[in-house]
Amino acid sequence: MLIVMETAASQEAVKKVCALIEEMGLTAHPMPGAQRTAIGVTGNKSRVDADRIMTQPGVKEIIHVTKPYKLVSREFYPEDTVVQIGDVKVGGSEFTIMAGPCSVESREQCLTIAEAVAKAGAKILRGGAYKPRTSPYTFQGLKEEGLKILAEARDKFGLLVVTEAIDTETIDLVAHYADIIQIGARNMQNYSLLRKAGKTQKPVLLKRGMSATLEEFLMAAEYIMAEGNRKVILCERGVRTFADHTRNTLDLSAIPYVKRTSHLPIIADPSHGTGRKDKVIPLSRAAMAVGADGLIIEVHHDPANALSDGPQAITPDMFESLVTQLRELAPVMHKKC
Amino acid sequence: MLIVMETAASQEAVKKVCALIEEMGLTAHPMPGAQRTAIGVTGNKSRVDADRIMTQPGVKEIIHVTKPYKLVSREFYPEDTVVQIGDVKVGGSEFTIMAGPCSVESREQCLTIAEAVAKAGAKILRGGAYKPRTSPYTFQGLKEEGLKILAEARDKFGLLVVTEAIDTETIDLVAHYADIIQIGARNMQNYSLLRKAGKTQKPVLLKRGMSATLEEFLMAAEYIMAEGNRKVILCERGVRTFADHTRNTLDLSAIPYVKRTSHLPIIADPSHGTGRKDKVIPLSRAAMAVGADGLIIEVHHDPANALSDGPQAITPDMFESLVTQLRELAPVMHKKC
Amino acid sequence: MLIVMETAASQEAVKKVCALIEEMGLTAHPMPGAQRTAIGVTGNKSRVDADRIMTQPGVKEIIHVTKPYKLVSREFYPEDTVVQIGDVKVGGSEFTIMAGPCSVESREQCLTIAEAVAKAGAKILRGGAYKPRTSPYTFQGLKEEGLKILAEARDKFGLLVVTEAIDTETIDLVAHYADIIQIGARNMQNYSLLRKAGKTQKPVLLKRGMSATLEEFLMAAEYIMAEGNRKVILCERGVRTFADHTRNTLDLSAIPYVKRTSHLPIIADPSHGTGRKDKVIPLSRAAMAVGADGLIIEVHHDPANALSDGPQAITPDMFESLVTQLRELAPVMHKKC
Amino acid sequence: MLIVMETAASQEAVKKVCALIEEMGLTAHPMPGAQRTAIGVTGNKSRVDADRIMTQPGVKEIIHVTKPYKLVSREFYPEDTVVQIGDVKVGGSEFTIMAGPCSVESREQCLTIAEAVAKAGAKILRGGAYKPRTSPYTFQGLKEEGLKILAEARDKFGLLVVTEAIDTETIDLVAHYADIIQIGARNMQNYSLLRKAGKTQKPVLLKRGMSATLEEFLMAAEYIMAEGNRKVILCERGVRTFADHTRNTLDLSAIPYVKRTSHLPIIADPSHGTGRKDKVIPLSRAAMAVGADGLIIEVHHDPANALSDGPQAITPDMFESLVTQLRELAPVMHKKC
Repeated sequence: MLIVMETAASQEAVKKVCALIEEMGLTAHPMPGAQRTAIGVTGNKSRVDADRIMTQPGVKEIIHVTKPYKLVSREFYPEDTVVQIGDVKVGGSEFTIMAGPCSVESREQCLTIAEAVAKAGAKILRGGAYKPRTSPYTFQGLKEEGLKILAEARDKFGLLVVTEAIDTETIDLVAHYADIIQIGARNMQNYSLLRKAGKTQKPVLLKRGMSATLEEFLMAAEYIMAEGNRKVILCERGVRTFADHTRNTLDLSAIPYVKRTSHLPIIADPSHGTGRKDKVIPLSRAAMAVGADGLIIEVHHDPANALSDGPQAITPDMFESLVTQLRELAPVMHKKC
Repeated sequence: MLIVMETAASQEAVKKVCALIEEMGLTAHPMPGAQRTAIGVTGNKSRVDADRIMTQPGVKEIIHVTKPYKLVSREFYPEDTVVQIGDVKVGGSEFTIMAGPCSVESREQCLTIAEAVAKAGAKILRGGAYKPRTSPYTFQGLKEEGLKILAEARDKFGLLVVTEAIDTETIDLVAHYADIIQIGARNMQNYSLLRKAGKTQKPVLLKRGMSATLEEFLMAAEYIMAEGNRKVILCERGVRTFADHTRNTLDLSAIPYVKRTSHLPIIADPSHGTGRKDKVIPLSRAAMAVGADGLIIEVHHDPANALSDGPQAITPDMFESLVTQLRELAPVMHKKC
Repeated sequence: MLIVMETAASQEAVKKVCALIEEMGLTAHPMPGAQRTAIGVTGNKSRVDADRIMTQPGVKEIIHVTKPYKLVSREFYPEDTVVQIGDVKVGGSEFTIMAGPCSVESREQCLTIAEAVAKAGAKILRGGAYKPRTSPYTFQGLKEEGLKILAEARDKFGLLVVTEAIDTETIDLVAHYADIIQIGARNMQNYSLLRKAGKTQKPVLLKRGMSATLEEFLMAAEYIMAEGNRKVILCERGVRTFADHTRNTLDLSAIPYVKRTSHLPIIADPSHGTGRKDKVIPLSRAAMAVGADGLIIEVHHDPANALSDGPQAITPDMFESLVTQLRELAPVMHKKC
Repeated sequence: MLIVMETAASQEAVKKVCALIEEMGLTAHPMPGAQRTAIGVTGNKSRVDADRIMTQPGVKEIIHVTKPYKLVSREFYPEDTVVQIGDVKVGGSEFTIMAGPCSVESREQCLTIAEAVAKAGAKILRGGAYKPRTSPYTFQGLKEEGLKILAEARDKFGLLVVTEAIDTETIDLVAHYADIIQIGARNMQNYSLLRKAGKTQKPVLLKRGMSATLEEFLMAAEYIMAEGNRKVILCERGVRTFADHTRNTLDLSAIPYVKRTSHLPIIADPSHGTGRKDKVIPLSRAAMAVGADGLIIEVHHDPANALSDGPQAITPDMFESLVTQLRELAPVMHKKC
């Protein structure tokens, strides 16, 4: 259920309505917008007694939401959510580029790549310190040491850091070092991890699962938001299909669908979405043209010797060329890049 | 096998090599390029005696092609094929828009839509006269009457006509009226139809099958080219996956893959590729940004009453807005639109 | 629409109702059952005036069918269709095994395999004379010569022959030699071919398309039946998915779904359904256990040198072992094998 | 790497080889078989100095395993693993039926169903106490209360209990009450949970992820076994495809593939694998016929009012009929049921 307050409704009025909702055993999610405040209501198992709420001062309208997602829904919160982290914004009129190595392999490797992507125009550094790997016998990441290297790169090159949390045991450590916590495709339905990511109150980058429908994807975001964390950034990263010319099939239609259904920002990952370095640049352009709010790109200065996902990493030179192309496209899409 | 001639090789030299190939029981496909001529050789069951050919005057190099496709391969013919039909080009630096109704339903409907799309900037009119329908009891198209209406629209509004041929019985009739023969997704592996389309020597628009790999797609084009018809335009139109927010999943990564592997032009069909009218404009922009050579779009002035595929047709107003957006994007992509 | 006649209704009454239907511009499909006759009605674009029919003598009930398929529907014809060809039955309490090479490669190869499968218990010989091949440069079948060899094998070993028709040009020739015309997966939506297969009035084995939903599959059968040909045998042969341990994913749940929705018999093709010879026997047992009416199996006495699909062909020894296992299972499934 | 000991090798010899392996910084996994002992070696990043091992007394052969999975591989451990829990066996010549409600909803519901399935022939009671649900607002399970109810049902009806663990926080509690810990499809690549499941040393039922290849599935089992836990039971539960007549596509070919590649037992889940109650019985028969070691089935005495997954639960009557059919099939498959 969604309560829409009048434009002129006071802060006091909003608080009173929230208090009433809590009194009824439900949870209130006040969402102040530029024009008016809306209050999301969750926790109802059956239909709520709307009359008691409707009679409160300042209440304009009550909308009964029938979709399974509530907090992520654009019906619930009609304006674009812009996730602001320091000076960097994700969503709205921004086009935000995240780039860096698949894994943090060493201090030198990470700083080299971070410098290159910062110089080329990335605002956010990506890099895995905890790696979910198919085999228990392959490189699993530098763990806390990797997080420290990322933090050093951040300080040195004025970047923000996004890195993956793979379990509830280590997410607090990740949250301590990172600016944005990434939840990977394999964990999109790891609900305990989603809830804990919500509780950190840090921005969360949530990747679509390999065979997730968009309803399941948005419901996973709902788990994070249900903990009171509204700073969720979605990411389309390709899905599993029969097609074998790419590692996954990047489903760009997901982006306009999500923009219409939800208020959350959504970016694309053409590196995992194709798994082929020569497809990263054209699909990045396509992601901007389809309406994405940004990109997350794997860059490696020596892809042949990368410890993970070498075939999909582009070089710093290719990355620079990509940013140049995106900056030519951005004005047409009314985006700042 | 591919024979690369020297830059200075005369027409005479090319002819002699071709004659030798034919004498050896093989088929020669001379492909004159801007720089030099290459001669494709097909029909060999085992390794060809290359020595006899290598010693001919003007022969620079012999390349043994191991890929299953030959004539469609960029190794075979390194320059972009541009299909020229009258004044209209498909491929190269052109971005060509084909638009019109799913089915020709009546003279009035077809002329109304044709006028609108011509005015907005389409160069080629699409419209089905023979419709492959899932049910034998639904509208199957106006057949020859539909072809005549398309021809009238062509003459009236200066458009070319692309329309589908669904069987070997009626393809000659289609070829008589149409400028481009479309082979639909359901018939991508109807090899008898492909061969006959090749034999017409008319330009052919070949759509990717619903679950075709790109190798199968290019091999289908090979069937057409093996008949000596080099005027093939490919079309990505979405594939079947588990995703349910669109009717098909438009696989835009197919476009840079095809551009790299083949010399043939490739366009996108975001109408069938998404099946949702509100996804057509963003995915059209993305198709241009990913490197497509054009689009084929379903337009209907009254989608609610369309006899087929109403939910995916955009209105003439939306089409006009789409063309405006594409024209803003085109210079960034170095395309004329 | 379906008209159910009373148990006691005379032949005369049935004929009168059919005449009335034809008079109304519709098509009548009388379907005599063990208990009573039902009359399917097709060709109606809007709701039929049922009152005129209901008042006819012998009419018990009128059922308005809302599903897109009519003639294939079990609502239309509640009893199992048994396709009888000479002494051989497909459907009902029979479990019918079709076996033979992928392609007819030579007289000797075909007769060797035919003798082996006949001895082991196959009733029907399979073998391709016209082969739809991904590449135009690979073996396309022996064509009419292949058909003659199949006919010779039939006469020699008392088998029936099933072989594929790939286009409308050659289907009459196929129909001349074969007992059952196979329509392959690639042609499942080649509607002109389906209609012509219907018109031959010969039994048709229709394979499910690689990415066909069951509704599309049943509608393809409807095209054949709409030509008045009720002798349709369906075949599940695997679908395209992301799974890479088999060539296709054999979707055995299709079999109970089809048995419930349609009256037509359905068999399984574990050779194409898995593409791996060591999976053919277990999946054949599973197909019987799930309720299939038979199997079509590729057998080759020298798979390593087969001209097509060697990796999925089992040897005559393996085939014999398979039949032994099926005969053990058959009584549990109340099937004759 | 796999070390095969001579048939006559003493326990002492095995211990010495293991000590040497550990001394080399590697991990030894002795696997006593009926004939001889094999010793798996993991932890090597590069090729191990096999000479030192080969010279030890009792060592017959050293096999360098190149597949990514080691401990799960049949090359590593050639005999069928039989997981024994009390009197109940899973694997080998047993066909083991697990049955019960999707969720434990109440003491009464659970005991009613447990009694029915025990009476009909189930050996193991399934039932979710912790439920991973797509929506944060739907029933999430009775948690510890649910575990207690399951334990009560076990004691009362002589059943074992299998129930799902959804996170590392609660897995110890699950392990305390359950006989078998289930890892669900959504968590198949939650590697921290897999490792912790391994460490409990309890039997683990591992379900295939919705879009997992079989290599990924076996590698997930490898994570559990790498913790020294050899009691892993695999479960095919259907994968995501375009097919829409069932909720998932049950991929029965996975079963013979796993039996050939791995020594671990594998069962099927036709309830989730089809999502349709009328498909559970035929697909259960097919699973036995394809070679599965057992089934896990959802049973509910009142499916219409089930709190989760009602459409796929069969009634106790249907379950009884299913067991009867399986017992008829079992002798043909040389299985005890």
